[in-house]
Amino acid sequence: MNEWEELQESVGFDFKNIELLQTAFTHSSYVNEHRHENLKDNERLEFLGDAVLELTVSDYLFNKYPDMAEGQMTKMRAAIVCEPSLVEFAEMVHFSKYIRLGKGEEKAGGRTRPALLADVFESFIGALYLDNGIQAVIRFLERLVFPKIDTGIYMQTVDFKTQLQEIVQRDRDVLIQYDILGETGPAHNKAFEAQVVVNGQVLGKGTGRTKKQAEQNAAEYAIRQVLRVD
Amino acid sequence: MNEWEELQESVGFDFKNIELLQTAFTHSSYVNEHRHENLKDNERLEFLGDAVLELTVSDYLFNKYPDMAEGQMTKMRAAIVCEPSLVEFAEMVHFSKYIRLGKGEEKAGGRTRPALLADVFESFIGALYLDNGIQAVIRFLERLVFPKIDTGIYMQTVDFKTQLQEIVQRDRDVLIQYDILGETGPAHNKAFEAQVVVNGQVLGKGTGRTKKQAEQNAAEYAIRQVLRVD
Repeated sequence: MNEWEELQESVGFDFKNIELLQTAFTHSSYVNEHRHENLKDNERLEFLGDAVLELTVSDYLFNKYPDMAEGQMTKMRAAIVCEPSLVEFAEMVHFSKYIRLGKGEEKAGGRTRPALLADVFESFIGALYLDNGIQAVIRFLERLVFPKIDTGIYMQTVDFKTQLQEIVQRDRDVLIQYDILGETGPAHNKAFEAQVVVNGQVLGKGTGRTKKQAEQNAAEYAIRQVLRVD
Repeated sequence: MNEWEELQESVGFDFKNIELLQTAFTHSSYVNEHRHENLKDNERLEFLGDAVLELTVSDYLFNKYPDMAEGQMTKMRAAIVCEPSLVEFAEMVHFSKYIRLGKGEEKAGGRTRPALLADVFESFIGALYLDNGIQAVIRFLERLVFPKIDTGIYMQTVDFKTQLQEIVQRDRDVLIQYDILGETGPAHNKAFEAQVVVNGQVLGKGTGRTKKQAEQNAAEYAIRQVLRVD
């Protein structure tokens, strides 16, 4: 079994046009070093795959969360179709080992560079879409991406500090202030505590492994308070 | 014939679920003024429609221009799926008259506000996608949008000044300077002439109806010069 057969088995799809799959894994640095072979790099497929991902993820969110506001869906989509998430998906299916890289890029550590890996995930989606259609992409995401969305992990990237500001400033000018109350634990396992003060009144407290996370949690708590009062 | 029948005739599609079409044309200000009617605004459909547009336009560009680089496709897509273009499309099918607006928003001129009109175009695309599938969207765009792409009008939005800077700065530090050489013609039909000077050498001249356009044309001319020399 050669590497392309192995890759197809791993993703669960047979490509009619194997060149599409190969192009998806071909970095421009490899093309530049093999000019006589008349290869294509993966950049055009990445352009297409990005749009395919945007739509399939949007469609999933739209149907899965019928009551979610547009603003939150937009934030969730951005948290799913972004470099760190795409790198994670690419790693789940071991895409890194199949990438065709130029020697210079290889030496420079390109194979594990997040931006490069995220691009390859998108170009693979573009190739799968062209070769097998959008339903195949959806089936692939049903295995790899949608279960992860269902865990709620991408909800946590919602920016509660911004949300709180939007909510309390609807009615009147208010002053929102965050204080770090303290930190506990050893260096490798710190916990911070924060509070949010709205017009002089403590509306929420929260803890987190970073100051930022503690403030986010305080803001989330305050939002629940404010919405209950309203 | 009521307004919704008229609208369906105008766009050339019968909706199975007419509520989807109505929601696409319902601004949040209208929902806020009709709370007892339990209406939905068009924001979620806009979220979905935006992604549908991105993919259908990307797919069209990918197939129509098999040799176009990813960077240029990205620029063209951005020039097509952007507020001014979407407003133009919405006006071609007279969407403005069907929008359901709150009284305050109506008084404030919301019906002709570009951002609002562009949103409605996207939410309509979202509704058409949900009701009739992506093929229906493509058929709609084949009438309204794709012929416009074929005229080459969106190619002209490529920013030649930026391109020139990228090209000449690859090798060394250079100074790029633009001069307006003069203007001719009456107020309603002015023409400007510009030149671009790279490290003291005039590389291109161009004319245009605005200073900006004259500079762009000068830059385009310079790019052709530079690439020919290389």
